[in-house]
Amino acid sequence: MAGMDSPLAEPLSRADIEAAARRIRPHVRHTPLLRLPGAALGLPVAELWLKLEHLQRSGSFKARGMFNRMLQRQQAGALPAAGVVVASGGNAGIAVADAAAALGLACEVFVPASVPAAKRARLQALGARVFAQGDSYADALLASRARQQASGALWMHAYDQVDVVAGAGTLALEMEADAGLPDRVLVSVGGGGLVGGIAAWCAGRCRVEALEPALAPTLHAARAAGRPVDVAVGGIAADALGARRIGDVAWSLNGLIAASHLLSDEAIRQAQVLLWRELRLAVEPAAALPLAALCSGAVRPAADERVALVICGANLDPASLAGL
Amino acid sequence: MAGMDSPLAEPLSRADIEAAARRIRPHVRHTPLLRLPGAALGLPVAELWLKLEHLQRSGSFKARGMFNRMLQRQQAGALPAAGVVVASGGNAGIAVADAAAALGLACEVFVPASVPAAKRARLQALGARVFAQGDSYADALLASRARQQASGALWMHAYDQVDVVAGAGTLALEMEADAGLPDRVLVSVGGGGLVGGIAAWCAGRCRVEALEPALAPTLHAARAAGRPVDVAVGGIAADALGARRIGDVAWSLNGLIAASHLLSDEAIRQAQVLLWRELRLAVEPAAALPLAALCSGAVRPAADERVALVICGANLDPASLAGL
Repeated sequence: MAGMDSPLAEPLSRADIEAAARRIRPHVRHTPLLRLPGAALGLPVAELWLKLEHLQRSGSFKARGMFNRMLQRQQAGALPAAGVVVASGGNAGIAVADAAAALGLACEVFVPASVPAAKRARLQALGARVFAQGDSYADALLASRARQQASGALWMHAYDQVDVVAGAGTLALEMEADAGLPDRVLVSVGGGGLVGGIAAWCAGRCRVEALEPALAPTLHAARAAGRPVDVAVGGIAADALGARRIGDVAWSLNGLIAASHLLSDEAIRQAQVLLWRELRLAVEPAAALPLAALCSGAVRPAADERVALVICGANLDPASLAGL
Repeated sequence: MAGMDSPLAEPLSRADIEAAARRIRPHVRHTPLLRLPGAALGLPVAELWLKLEHLQRSGSFKARGMFNRMLQRQQAGALPAAGVVVASGGNAGIAVADAAAALGLACEVFVPASVPAAKRARLQALGARVFAQGDSYADALLASRARQQASGALWMHAYDQVDVVAGAGTLALEMEADAGLPDRVLVSVGGGGLVGGIAAWCAGRCRVEALEPALAPTLHAARAAGRPVDVAVGGIAADALGARRIGDVAWSLNGLIAASHLLSDEAIRQAQVLLWRELRLAVEPAAALPLAALCSGAVRPAADERVALVICGANLDPASLAGL
C-alpha cells in the first residue's frame, strides 16, 4: 500500500535526492566503498564495488529514508507532537526508532505478535513504544493506521513514500561522489524503496538491475502483470525482503530499472557465506542477493565492467555464520 | 626472536614502505576507511577513522608483509625452489599460506599440536602442508627452523623481518593517501610488526600509540626494561597478540611510538561487542584494542582530534558474537 500522505505527483528527481543528501548528512554515515578485482571472488568481471551500506547506522540503508522524511517534516515545521508511527518488525522499524530517538521524537512501532522478543527488546532499547498485535504484518499495519488516525502522529511507511525513496537514493549519489558511476548496479528488492531511489539517481546513466528471492518476487510479478500485484512471500530473506507488493513509488520508476532477476534461497545463502568467508562481511541474506546474482550466473556482465553490489543490511544474528 | 636473514642495518625508511606499496598493490586489497563523528560511539572526539583492515585478504593486515617479503625475493630472483616455511597457528600462518598459493610457491606451516583442527584445515585448504609438532609455539618454531635448514626454503617470521614490517607500514601510507594523516593512530601490538611499520611511515608526523592486553605486554615490558624481554602471555587476544617478546625490528622503531598502554580483557571484550552492536564490524579481540583504549579512558584525545583506529583482523568464529 502507498503512504497515505505522499501521493506521487511526479517522478522522483535527482534534485530531490540531492536535497535529501544535504538534509541527512549530519545524521547518517557516509558508508565505505570496497573496490576489488572480480578475481578476488573468482568472478570474471574487472571490478566489484561493494557499497558497505550494512555499516550504516541502525544496520541498514533504511536510516537514510527515515531520517530524510522526518527531517523534511521537521524543517517544514510540520512534525506532530505525537511523533512518528510505523508498522515493521524489521529494518524499517529499527531505523524509524533510531532516527526518532536521535531527533527527540516520540515513536510507536507496531509488530506482529510473532516477532521475536529480541527484536522487540531492541526497539524498546531505542526508546520506542512497541505494540505486538495480530498474527501478521497486515494486522500490525491495520492497528498502526488506526493508532495514527487517533494520535495524529506522522505515518512512516517502510518503503513507499517519496521522501523515504529519495533518502535511499542518496546511497547512489554518495557512491558516485566517491568513485563515479559503475557500469552496472545490482540491488535487492523487497518493497522497492532502495532500487527506486538508486534508479532515480542513476536515471539511465548506468544499468540498474533488481534482484529478488524467487520466494518473494514483488517487482518481478509486477513487471509480468504490468501493474503491482500481491504475491506470496517466504524464504531465507523474507524478514527484510518480505513486502507483499511493490511500492507505488518504486513502480513509477520501473522504467529506469533495466532488468529484474529471481534467485533461489540456496544461491542467496551461498553468497552470504562467501561474503563472510572471503571478505569478513557479516550481512543478512537480503544483502547477499547482488553477489548471488553474479555467482549463479543470473547476471553476466562483460569482462571489462565495473559492477556495484549494494550490501544493504546487517541485521543478523552472527550465530547464522558460526563455524564458517 | 629476530628473523634469521634480515639483520636491521638501518631503521626502516618511508622509501622502503613506498617500494613495498608498489610491490604488493596488485595482490592486496586497498581496505576502506570508515569515518565517523566520535559521537556515533559516544566518544568526545571530533572524528574516528576506522581503517577496516580486517577486510584485507586472508582476514588481517598480515597479508601486506607476507606478500612484500615473498615478492621482494621473487623479484630479486632469490626465491628457493623449496618455497616458504613459517611457524604460526594464527593470522601470520594463514597469510603466508594464502600469499604462497597466490604466487605459486610451496608452503609449509608448523603449528603446535594444540591448534584446533579447523585452523589446520583452513591452512590445508590454502594448499599448505601443515605440521603439528610439540606442545607450544616454541616447539613448532624449533621444528620449523630445523626443517628450513634442511630444505633451504625461505624463512618467514610472523612479524620480525624488515620486509614484513615494511609491508605492514603500507597500511598507513594507504590511509594517508585516502584522507591525509589523522592527529593520532591507535594500533594493537603483539610482536610489533604493525605498529613498527605504521610508526616508520608516520615518522613523527602524527602521534602513534601502542595498545596491548595487560596479559600480553611485550612492548610495555620492553619499554620498562629498556630492552626486549620475554613476557608471559595469555588472555582474550592471545591467539593474535600472543608473541612472547617484542621484535627487534619494532624495537628499533620504539622511539617513534609516542606511548604504550595496557588494557584489560574486559575492556577489550566490551569494545569488540560495541564494534559489532553499533557498527556491524565482526572482528577478533585483537582488533578491538584501539576502541577499548578510547572507551576505557586509557587514551584521552583532545576534543578536536581525528583519531585513527586500526581494525587489524577478523579471524574469529562469529559464534563469539551470537545473540548480541
